[in-house]
Amino acid sequence: MGFLLQICKMLQNRVTQLFDIEVPIVQGGMVWASGWRLASAVSNAGGLGIIGAGSMYPEVLKTHILKCKAATTRPFAVNLPLLYPNAAEHIASIIEHGVPIVFTSAGNPAVWTQKLRDAGITVVHVVSSSKFAAKAQLAGCHAVVAEGFEAGGHNGREETTTLVLVPSVVSAVDIPVIAAGGIATGAQMASMLCLGAEGVQVGSRFVATPEASSHMAFKEAVLASKEGDTKLVLKALTPVRLLKNPFFEAVVASETKGVSTDELAALLGKGRAKKGMLEGDLTNGELEIGQASALISALKPAAEVVYELATDCLSTLNRLNEKYLGQK
Amino acid sequence: MGFLLQICKMLQNRVTQLFDIEVPIVQGGMVWASGWRLASAVSNAGGLGIIGAGSMYPEVLKTHILKCKAATTRPFAVNLPLLYPNAAEHIASIIEHGVPIVFTSAGNPAVWTQKLRDAGITVVHVVSSSKFAAKAQLAGCHAVVAEGFEAGGHNGREETTTLVLVPSVVSAVDIPVIAAGGIATGAQMASMLCLGAEGVQVGSRFVATPEASSHMAFKEAVLASKEGDTKLVLKALTPVRLLKNPFFEAVVASETKGVSTDELAALLGKGRAKKGMLEGDLTNGELEIGQASALISALKPAAEVVYELATDCLSTLNRLNEKYLGQK
Repeated sequence: MGFLLQICKMLQNRVTQLFDIEVPIVQGGMVWASGWRLASAVSNAGGLGIIGAGSMYPEVLKTHILKCKAATTRPFAVNLPLLYPNAAEHIASIIEHGVPIVFTSAGNPAVWTQKLRDAGITVVHVVSSSKFAAKAQLAGCHAVVAEGFEAGGHNGREETTTLVLVPSVVSAVDIPVIAAGGIATGAQMASMLCLGAEGVQVGSRFVATPEASSHMAFKEAVLASKEGDTKLVLKALTPVRLLKNPFFEAVVASETKGVSTDELAALLGKGRAKKGMLEGDLTNGELEIGQASALISALKPAAEVVYELATDCLSTLNRLNEKYLGQK
Repeated sequence: MGFLLQICKMLQNRVTQLFDIEVPIVQGGMVWASGWRLASAVSNAGGLGIIGAGSMYPEVLKTHILKCKAATTRPFAVNLPLLYPNAAEHIASIIEHGVPIVFTSAGNPAVWTQKLRDAGITVVHVVSSSKFAAKAQLAGCHAVVAEGFEAGGHNGREETTTLVLVPSVVSAVDIPVIAAGGIATGAQMASMLCLGAEGVQVGSRFVATPEASSHMAFKEAVLASKEGDTKLVLKALTPVRLLKNPFFEAVVASETKGVSTDELAALLGKGRAKKGMLEGDLTNGELEIGQASALISALKPAAEVVYELATDCLSTLNRLNEKYLGQK
C-alpha cells in the first residue's frame, strides 16, 4: 500500500483531486457484484470504490453504506440508476449517512444533481454520448463517465465505442472525463489518458476478485470467456451486454423471429440478473459482463487490480517515452 | 514535407521498417474512395497509401497501379478482398507490375500469402479477432491489421471493439500489429501505441480529402455526420457499417420484420455502394463509413491528414510525459 502510494502519486490529476484519492481508478458500480466489501477494498487501495445500488432495496443499501464506512476511512461512492423506483429513498439514505460521492446513471441528471450538491455531495453522471455529457455539465455535475459500447450491462443506443466516445466527450465538456467500457489493463488506462480522459472506470475486471459478491460460478465463467463471448442484446427494451449462455441464446432466437417488446419483456421476466450473477445459474440467469472479460484470466484481490492498473499504466507511458521520444 | 520527415522520424518502429515509410500511418483501402490519387498522396506524405481493389475490375486496378507508380517513388500497397471473384487476376497484375505490399482481407490468408511472398511482396492481413490473427501469422503474413467494430464498411461478426481487439491481437502474435477502426486523430494514434500497436490504419478520415475519389455529396455527408449516425447492419449477410440514410432505414425496417436473407440480398441489390459513394446518391445509395466520421469536420489534403496525425500523436505523448512522468 505504501509502495503503491509512492509509485502512483505520479498519477495525480483533476479526478484524483475531485475525489481525494491516490490513483484515478474508479471501480464501476455493478449489480450483484459491488457491495461494501469490494467498494471498501478498492478505496483502501487508493482508488474509488462504488457500491452499486441498482440491485439493492433501500434497507440493503443503508446496510452496505454503514459497513463500507466501517471498513474504510477513504472516500467511496454509491452508483444510483435514476430511473430506479426507489431512487428518492436511496438519495435520502445517501445524504443521511454522509456518502461523499454519487455516480448517477440511466436518467436525467437535471432532476437530482442540485439536491445532492446542496448536501455537499460530489456528483458524477454516466453518459453514452457527448450530447448527454453536455447536459450533465449543465445540470451541475462535477465530472462525467463516458461509457462505450463494449461495456457490460446496460448500454447506450448509439453504440459508440469507447475509442470514439471519449475524445467526443472530452471535446464537448470542460469538467473531467472518466473513460469506461472495455478497460481491464494498465496499457488501456494509458490509452485513455491519451484521449484526454483523466481517469478510468473499470467494471468487469473487478468482478473477477474475491471481494465481488458475484457467485463463484459466474466469476469462473468470466475468467473462461474469450473474444466474441459477449453481445449487446434486448435493444428493443434496454440494450444490455450479456455473456453468451442458454438464456442469451433464447433472447437471440426471439429477436431473430421479430417478437414484440412485450414478449421480450415476458421472456426476460423478473430476477434473471440475480439468478445468474448472484445465485450462479449459468443456464437460466442473465449474465452481465463487458467485452473486457476476454482480457481477464485470473482471480485477483481488488487491491492488486488497482496496483497493476496504476503501475502498468505508468510503465506503458515510460515505454512509449523511451521508444518514441528517446527519453530515459 | 521535409519538416514532416524531420519531426516524424521519431515515430520509427517495426511497421515503418517493414514498409520503408516515414510514419506508421496506413491509409485504409476503401471501395469507391481510394484510387491512385489518394494512395500516391499518402505515400508521398510519408505514410503508406493503399489502392482499394475491392471496387475495381482487373483492367481498372492495373490502370490505378500504373498511375500510382507514375505519381510516387515511395512504397504503396493494394488492398485485396480475397473472396472477390477476380482475386486471381488481381494478384497476377499486382505481381506483374511490381506492387511492393499487399493488404489482404475477407478470406483465408493461407491461400495466397505464400505466392505473394515468393514474388517478394510484403503481405499484411486484416483481421477482426486474435484467432484470425494467429492464423495470418501462421500463413506467413508479415503483419496484421486488427480492425474493430467501429470501422466503416465490412466488419467482423464478433463485434469486438478496437480498444479490446488490439491488446488481444498483440498478445496473440509476434508480428507487428496495425490498429484500425475508429481512428481519425493523433491522440487516438497515441492511444493505439499504448496498446502495443506499432501503426494505425485510418480509413474514414481519408474519405474527407480532395484526393479521395468519393462523390463530394458523400464527403459532405461524412463531414456533417455526428455520433450515432452510423450503425452496423446486414448482419445476416455480411455485417457492414453504414451512414444512416433512407436506404439504411429500409434495411433496418426489413431486419426488424425478420425477413429472410434472400429478401435482404434482394433489397441490397447490385451497385448500391457505387451509387452512394461514387455517384453521390444519398437517398438510394449504400454509404460505408466508420464511427470516426463523428470526429471529422473539415476536408483536408491527404498530406495534411498524415502530418496532423503524426504531430498530434507525438504532442499527445509529450503532454502525458510532462503531466504524469514530470519530464520536459
